[in-house]
Amino acid sequence: MSADLALPARLLMGSGPTNPDPRVLRAMATGLVGQFDPAFTALMGETQELLRQVFRTRNRSTFPVPGTSRAGMEAAVVSLVEPGERVVVVENGRFGLLFEEIARRAGAEVTVVRTPWGKPVDPDDVRRALDAAPAMAVLVVHAETSTGAMNPVREVAAAAHRQGVAVVVDAVCSFAGAPLETDAWELDVVVAGTQKCLGCPSGLAPVTYSDAVAARMARRRSPIRSNYLDLTQLDRYWSPERLNHHTAPTTMVYGLREALRIVLEEGLDARIARHRCAGEAMAMGLAALGLELFGQPLGPGKMPMLAPVAVPEGVDDAAFRARLLEAHGVEIMGAFGALAGRVWRIGSMADNARPAPVLRTLGALGDTLGGRARGMVPDALTAAGRRFDALARAAAPA
Amino acid sequence: MSADLALPARLLMGSGPTNPDPRVLRAMATGLVGQFDPAFTALMGETQELLRQVFRTRNRSTFPVPGTSRAGMEAAVVSLVEPGERVVVVENGRFGLLFEEIARRAGAEVTVVRTPWGKPVDPDDVRRALDAAPAMAVLVVHAETSTGAMNPVREVAAAAHRQGVAVVVDAVCSFAGAPLETDAWELDVVVAGTQKCLGCPSGLAPVTYSDAVAARMARRRSPIRSNYLDLTQLDRYWSPERLNHHTAPTTMVYGLREALRIVLEEGLDARIARHRCAGEAMAMGLAALGLELFGQPLGPGKMPMLAPVAVPEGVDDAAFRARLLEAHGVEIMGAFGALAGRVWRIGSMADNARPAPVLRTLGALGDTLGGRARGMVPDALTAAGRRFDALARAAAPA
Repeated sequence: MSADLALPARLLMGSGPTNPDPRVLRAMATGLVGQFDPAFTALMGETQELLRQVFRTRNRSTFPVPGTSRAGMEAAVVSLVEPGERVVVVENGRFGLLFEEIARRAGAEVTVVRTPWGKPVDPDDVRRALDAAPAMAVLVVHAETSTGAMNPVREVAAAAHRQGVAVVVDAVCSFAGAPLETDAWELDVVVAGTQKCLGCPSGLAPVTYSDAVAARMARRRSPIRSNYLDLTQLDRYWSPERLNHHTAPTTMVYGLREALRIVLEEGLDARIARHRCAGEAMAMGLAALGLELFGQPLGPGKMPMLAPVAVPEGVDDAAFRARLLEAHGVEIMGAFGALAGRVWRIGSMADNARPAPVLRTLGALGDTLGGRARGMVPDALTAAGRRFDALARAAAPA
Repeated sequence: MSADLALPARLLMGSGPTNPDPRVLRAMATGLVGQFDPAFTALMGETQELLRQVFRTRNRSTFPVPGTSRAGMEAAVVSLVEPGERVVVVENGRFGLLFEEIARRAGAEVTVVRTPWGKPVDPDDVRRALDAAPAMAVLVVHAETSTGAMNPVREVAAAAHRQGVAVVVDAVCSFAGAPLETDAWELDVVVAGTQKCLGCPSGLAPVTYSDAVAARMARRRSPIRSNYLDLTQLDRYWSPERLNHHTAPTTMVYGLREALRIVLEEGLDARIARHRCAGEAMAMGLAALGLELFGQPLGPGKMPMLAPVAVPEGVDDAAFRARLLEAHGVEIMGAFGALAGRVWRIGSMADNARPAPVLRTLGALGDTLGGRARGMVPDALTAAGRRFDALARAAAPA
């Protein structure tokens, strides 16, 4: 009744997932070993060490939560925050709203610092909120993929620490694609994603947290409400104790490890520079097509790996994206809430933060927009190509 | 710093995961499409229809939870049960204890019906527990993989329904390997696993539940405490509404769909008969090696796909299993709690419920046990082989 799996080739230039490196997919087709097999526990240790390098941390508690990114966000909140405790949530997009929802469902008292969508939060607003109502944690999204805004998590952490408050950072989209310094910035808990700049399929949420956070979880007065997302149990499974918890999604761990190796073979700094360059090239090309960037201009308040642009007057969002997918095999994303139908989100992540995918996307967009935009494609390709040339020159030996 | 993924070939004859069919692994290496791509949403619909056939249900709400089996168990409990409501948990093994732990963490009042490990529950005990303290749900494990006992879930459901109480069944290990009739047995919620008789890597938990259960979830007075494991939101993502929830682990869905296709190509009844035969062959072979079955004799109270045997006097459990793995590449499992060190759990699931893996396991066990058992290997192979011959004869045209 159902046919062999046969899917069209797609260039994934939305907000994630992106196209994984073929090495990652091949690793995921490897035959299984048991989760307590010495061959697998060795792999777990290696994966944790690779994760520490990409998180830039020496945290002992560094491992993937067995679910997608929001499983990591929820695991962090339910494991750290006890019902009735207050948290400050930074909200300037859909993923800030998700943190708010998760915290409320976990029984937390919630103070929300709201900032207009597209703008980064002002750390002073966080400071004022903490002054007004003491809290035990600040929850903040680093790269707000719903709007393209980049929050100053280092400054938010500093504001929180002045009052002895821990910061929980959603770095799902910045991980392996933008500067993220867990230890140097003193981020207490960081949650990452696999399907964005890391270039691995969705299904695991790497997390890291400090010994102080681990000690705080151990000191809770009430039990963690979840078994599946209990970081203290997951930590014991990922430590030499090897507590028997879930049946590990070992195939996902194979893929994660391979994706991390690819990051470190390239070098994390080089990869971050490549994402910044590709994001700038994409933004310049989009401008040359006559499209208008939504939110922040290029710079520290703007995510490098995601360009949000205004849907041009008179263009139907959904119909346009369906045409782009059908005719060119290129996927870009719409937006949420008040931005739905009004903003496209165009990503350049992992292996797609390179000239070929960016130029193909610009060409496909120009062609699908038709009319005047079609004639602007050569300029867009030139603008983007020049930006990539500059990166290549900078990387070339003197 | 880390080498190419290179893992030893293992024959997984424990309590799961088992070795997936190569078709499943190949499907999982397929390139990604976006989760709202029409090519993927079509695949979602197909996967749901395949799941319904294997669950033997017409339930609309039939989809995989994006986590391992216990994520499905927890999703069912937290979505259905409100804090302060009473549930009856059937406990005769580690996974009964897990249901108890999940229910307590979810804030439920819990009545536990305890039965000695290895024995199936008596449905009258459930009836009496419900008489003594009215509850809103009964949580019961179908195939208790920790002990090999098979609980009479049909009779437990009947006992629960006499009082208008819903039954939540953990069918993680019985799914696609033993009779499981969601609709005919009137099971209100059923949670399955992928890594056991289905033969797919771990990472998704298929669930199915009735419209009445869905209506009850919709009528809750308090919000579901989890966002990630909120079945009402997952249901809306898996329905034509396509609510944007998590970033789907699409690779896992590719694998699940392929594994379900393989089940239905063989025929669910034929697959169940094969699992029963392989389990009997394994049990007969183990007896011929002088090993003693733990718990129930072969029959309705015993799981067909898992043989629990007593660790022989004088044999060190962990050292023995390490030797078996090292010298023969065969993985079997130890046990939990009071059974740890005293019981081995030897599975024959999915593609390993066939003559070659069963005979190889018996030979490897006999060799590793050494001494008298080594000399008994020919008898063990003969006993197991004869049982498989009987299945082949029964399947042959008259």
